[in-house]
Amino acid sequence: MQTVDHVRLSADEQDLIILDQTQLPNRQVYLTLRHREELYRAIKELQVRGAPAIGIFAGFAMYVLARQYPREGFMERFKEDAAYLNSSRPTAVNLSWALRRMTAAAEASGGDLNVLRKECQAILEEDIAMCTAISEHGLSLLKEGDGVLTHCNAGPIATSKYGTAIGPILLGAERGVHIRAFCDETRPLLQGARLTSWELTRAGVDTTLICDNMAATVMSQGKVQFCFVGCDRVAMNGDAANKIGTYGVAILAKHFGIPFYVLGPTSTIDRNCPTGKEIPVELRAEEEIRSKWYKEPMAPSDVKCFNPSFDVTDHSLIAGIITEKGICRPPFTESLKALFE
Amino acid sequence: MQTVDHVRLSADEQDLIILDQTQLPNRQVYLTLRHREELYRAIKELQVRGAPAIGIFAGFAMYVLARQYPREGFMERFKEDAAYLNSSRPTAVNLSWALRRMTAAAEASGGDLNVLRKECQAILEEDIAMCTAISEHGLSLLKEGDGVLTHCNAGPIATSKYGTAIGPILLGAERGVHIRAFCDETRPLLQGARLTSWELTRAGVDTTLICDNMAATVMSQGKVQFCFVGCDRVAMNGDAANKIGTYGVAILAKHFGIPFYVLGPTSTIDRNCPTGKEIPVELRAEEEIRSKWYKEPMAPSDVKCFNPSFDVTDHSLIAGIITEKGICRPPFTESLKALFE
Repeated sequence: MQTVDHVRLSADEQDLIILDQTQLPNRQVYLTLRHREELYRAIKELQVRGAPAIGIFAGFAMYVLARQYPREGFMERFKEDAAYLNSSRPTAVNLSWALRRMTAAAEASGGDLNVLRKECQAILEEDIAMCTAISEHGLSLLKEGDGVLTHCNAGPIATSKYGTAIGPILLGAERGVHIRAFCDETRPLLQGARLTSWELTRAGVDTTLICDNMAATVMSQGKVQFCFVGCDRVAMNGDAANKIGTYGVAILAKHFGIPFYVLGPTSTIDRNCPTGKEIPVELRAEEEIRSKWYKEPMAPSDVKCFNPSFDVTDHSLIAGIITEKGICRPPFTESLKALFE
Repeated sequence: MQTVDHVRLSADEQDLIILDQTQLPNRQVYLTLRHREELYRAIKELQVRGAPAIGIFAGFAMYVLARQYPREGFMERFKEDAAYLNSSRPTAVNLSWALRRMTAAAEASGGDLNVLRKECQAILEEDIAMCTAISEHGLSLLKEGDGVLTHCNAGPIATSKYGTAIGPILLGAERGVHIRAFCDETRPLLQGARLTSWELTRAGVDTTLICDNMAATVMSQGKVQFCFVGCDRVAMNGDAANKIGTYGVAILAKHFGIPFYVLGPTSTIDRNCPTGKEIPVELRAEEEIRSKWYKEPMAPSDVKCFNPSFDVTDHSLIAGIITEKGICRPPFTESLKALFE
């Protein structure tokens, strides 16, 4: 875990090199990208995914592109390409945030490549600092031999180093603290099976993959001391939206008296969102349940499939929300507010 | 639902015709079986599955085979074939039970084909009566428009008519009582997706397929008024073993105040088993999680997979156990014991 190798510049800084996440876990393929169409496609087709990782990618992408512009018309080209990349996944907040930041740096410096190089490096390093701080706070809860259950993927390849939900486990592994990880496979997109179990096993962590419906059994057998999950958005009362299935894990954890923690940067706390009721739930394609990944469909074509992409965990089920600034405890209406004062 | 068509004799009674369950839901293929090797293979390769359905199959299979024996050496051939079929799935209790019953009928009647015909028909009709009674008791709890969540498959193709867990829904459909069904897909073998959602949709029931990890969301939205599940074995204190994931559904149901019912014949209540602790949990192959059904593996080959085939739901989570004799209520130590008095 000494380097970030899934989104990085080539040695001559002419290219952006990324790990193609669509080919995991079967093939570890690196793509060398230079042209705007290639960079656009990498985001669009989820070769790079995870909100923080997309932000880091966008910063480096604009630097690689800026090196190709003539002085004449530099800012026009820059803005045109930033708008083009931004259209690849319009709802990805970190993408537009990173592109705005690079555009501001380009404008303020008159297109100085050294300034742009520092700016994209800063985006990466700030993310590493954020993940490291979250991982430190999370690791402070754990002791040698503990079992941690996680859901979906909030690891290094979705961020920079360590990740958020599995950051404490990976930081522990670096320091010789052995944590046993349990990964929910996370249907229907299987991020836990394809990505989280791959990341943890690669880092030498004792990792066990389970189907989502096996979490109760694993908890009942005393194998799990903590649940650590990521988050997409946190409301000001502590309700937390995350990948579908998280809510169920939290209810099971409560039943078995296992503390359930949400890990994420303060940027995911939405100050305009008072409770989870205000978070809309996106419904995704039925085919993700019926046929995706399979040799042939596993359900009849005329059966309805209900496919919400995430759920909202009630704050009453959450023991703490771990941010880079520390661990917020209930009542979250007070502890989350205090983060912004 | 007027006929049982997934295990039946041909019109001339020379053959046994079965629905090949391994090809569902993509192809509805009927197999015509006559020879002992074909009949053995049908059980072995799960073309017929579900404990009661296997028992019914075994009865008809012995009748079809007996028609082919010469009078000379009839009982030797009969016993030899019964032993051969019994070796196809040694742990299937209903298989050996049905074969013993057919063998006893053959011996008592001196190999009278009419007696054997009646005996295999009786096995079928007793199962239909049992499923119908369970379905009646279950339906007595439901009213028009209720939502019922089920897990795995305990439907007609695993039994005879109606099934157990989804029997009340199918009986309701026959009588114009509209129940909305929610089927957990039931990883890793996907019986809910492949079989239950197919059976319910085919019967005209309003059916929604969900991933196992979506049950909490569906419950939180008020869509589910009851959970109905089957069982593999019930201990005398009411602890109930069923397909992996059932325990988690029961915990979620308790959290949301939704009554959780276990449906099954009294033959699944094990009088020699005081509590669920005495029920051993079978661990199945890791490949079922890692690669089964998929175009390519969805998890790294070096990650451990934990794959228990069922779990045991604590009796404290169960509102009632519905048998052909009626609905047993807590305390189950008393109500289950009373079934056998």
